[in-house]
Amino acid sequence: MKVAILGYGNIGRAAEQAIIAAPDMELAGIFHHNDRRVSGDEQAMRDNPIDADVVLLCTPTREVQKFATVLAARGICTVDSFDIHGQIWNLRNALDAVCETNRSVSIISAGWDPGTDSMVRALLKAMAPKGLTYTNFGPGRSMGHTVAAKAIPGVKNALSMTIPLGTGIHRRMVYVELEDGADFKTVEAALLADDYFAHDETHVIAVDSVDALNNVAHGVNLVRNGVSGDTHNQRFEFNMTINNPALTGQVMVSCARAAMRMKQRGEYGAKTMIELRPIDLLPGEKENIIKEIV
Amino acid sequence: MKVAILGYGNIGRAAEQAIIAAPDMELAGIFHHNDRRVSGDEQAMRDNPIDADVVLLCTPTREVQKFATVLAARGICTVDSFDIHGQIWNLRNALDAVCETNRSVSIISAGWDPGTDSMVRALLKAMAPKGLTYTNFGPGRSMGHTVAAKAIPGVKNALSMTIPLGTGIHRRMVYVELEDGADFKTVEAALLADDYFAHDETHVIAVDSVDALNNVAHGVNLVRNGVSGDTHNQRFEFNMTINNPALTGQVMVSCARAAMRMKQRGEYGAKTMIELRPIDLLPGEKENIIKEIV
Repeated sequence: MKVAILGYGNIGRAAEQAIIAAPDMELAGIFHHNDRRVSGDEQAMRDNPIDADVVLLCTPTREVQKFATVLAARGICTVDSFDIHGQIWNLRNALDAVCETNRSVSIISAGWDPGTDSMVRALLKAMAPKGLTYTNFGPGRSMGHTVAAKAIPGVKNALSMTIPLGTGIHRRMVYVELEDGADFKTVEAALLADDYFAHDETHVIAVDSVDALNNVAHGVNLVRNGVSGDTHNQRFEFNMTINNPALTGQVMVSCARAAMRMKQRGEYGAKTMIELRPIDLLPGEKENIIKEIV
Repeated sequence: MKVAILGYGNIGRAAEQAIIAAPDMELAGIFHHNDRRVSGDEQAMRDNPIDADVVLLCTPTREVQKFATVLAARGICTVDSFDIHGQIWNLRNALDAVCETNRSVSIISAGWDPGTDSMVRALLKAMAPKGLTYTNFGPGRSMGHTVAAKAIPGVKNALSMTIPLGTGIHRRMVYVELEDGADFKTVEAALLADDYFAHDETHVIAVDSVDALNNVAHGVNLVRNGVSGDTHNQRFEFNMTINNPALTGQVMVSCARAAMRMKQRGEYGAKTMIELRPIDLLPGEKENIIKEIV
C-alpha cells in the first residue's frame, strides 16, 4: 500500500514515522508547499501525477476540502483530520459525491477528537443509550485558542492550555509573550473580551518565553453514566495521556489502511470514523486479528 | 424492526427491557424451552414460523451454534453473546457460509467481553500499534468458575468472584455453601486442585447462604501503553462498572439493529463486533448521529 503525505508540519512528520513503522505500507512521497516536488496549489496538484494509493492531508484544516476534492476526482483515496465539529457533515456531503463518481474513499475527521473519541462516544451510547457523556480535554494546548491569543494586539507569541474541570467545562490558561512596549493589562483585557475566551474561566499570564513552555502532550477523560435497558447507573470512562501529533498521525495512517480496504470492496464515498469497522484499521489477516483481539 | 428473544434467563430479561426502550424496535416474542410458544429443540424451531427480523440468542453459550444455524438457514438474522474466546473463529466460520447462502446476518460474541471490549482493544491497537494491552476483569462473578465450583463434591451452592490484581492477573474469591455433612477442608482441597483454580491465587470461604451474596455487578479496567509511530508512552485506559446482564442484553439489542442494516445493504455473513461500524449500533438518521457524536 503506497501512502503519501501532503503537509510536513507536526502531524505530517508523525504520520511519516507511522508509515515507516507499518508492516504493510510504503512511503510514496512527502509533498509540501515549500518543497520542489509539488506546489501546494490546486493546479499543481492536478498537473503532477502522484503514485500513491492514499494521500494523508496533513494540511491546515481549512485547506482539506480543496485537496481532498482534487485527489478524489482522480480516484485517489484521502485521509484528513478536519477538526471543525460543526462543519463535518457538510464536508462529508461535499466529498461523498466526488468519491462515489470517481470510485475513491475519503476518510474525514480522522484524528482523536473528532476521530477515535467519536468511536468511543458512539460505542458508549450503544451500551447505555440514555444518559450523559462528558468529554473533558487536557491538560494540553488548544490550537484554536492559541491562534486567537496570538491575534491579540501586543502579543508576540502565545500558548493557550486547556484544563479540564469536569462535566465538559474547561479553564483556559493563556501564556503570553508581549511585544516590546505592550501593556499587559491592555492585552489581558482584550484577550478576556475575545469571543474565544469570554465564555470560559480564563487566566492570562505574561512569560518571557512561550517557546520554553512548548509541549505537545495532551489528554482526554471521557465519561458516560447511562441506562442499559431499564438499568441505571452504568458507568464508563475512557482516559488517555498522549503525544498529540504522534497520535493524530498514527490514527490517519491506520485510517489509510481502512480506506484502501473499503476501496477494494467497492465501498466508495466519504466516511467519518464511526462509519468504519475497527478491524479495517489493523494490519494482517482477519483470522489472526479476530483470534488475537476478540 | 421486529426482534424476538430465545432464552429467558438474566440476559433474555435484560434484552426484553432494551427492546422495549428502543425507539425503532418491536418485541416479536419471547421463546423459552419451558414456554408453550416454542420448544427449545431444533425440530420445533424449524416447525414454528417466527415473525421476526432478528432473534437474540440468550441461551447457554453451547446452544448458540445450533439455533443460529437453524435461523440463518431460514434467512433470519441472529445475535448471540457466545463467550468461549478460543472458539469464536470456528463459530464465525461455521455460520458464515449459512448466512451467505441464505442472505442473513449473524452477529456473534456480542456482549462486553468478547464484544465491546474487543472493539476498544482493536481501536487502541490502531492508535498505538506496538505495546501491551491488559484487560482486568471485576470485581464480579465469573460464570465459568462458579459452575466449576458448584461441581465440586460436597458443594451445595457456590459463587466465584473475579478480583483484578492488574496486568491481567486475577484473584478468585470462592464462596461455598456446603452440603450437610460435607467437610470444608476436603472441599477446599478439591477446589484448589481443579484446573479452573489451580493457576490463580484462590481463596475458599464457607458461607451459610450463597444467595445472600447475589449481585450481578461487574467491571473492567482495560489498559494499554503503546507506541504511535515512533513515539512511546502513549497511555490509554477504559473503565466500566456495570450491571452485567443489563449491559449484555443492551449490547445484543444494539447489534440487532446493526444486523438489520447490514442485511438491508446485502452485507450477509457472520461477523464479530470488531467487524461492525459503530454508527450501525445507534438508532436514527446518519446525519443526526454524525452531527451529535462525531
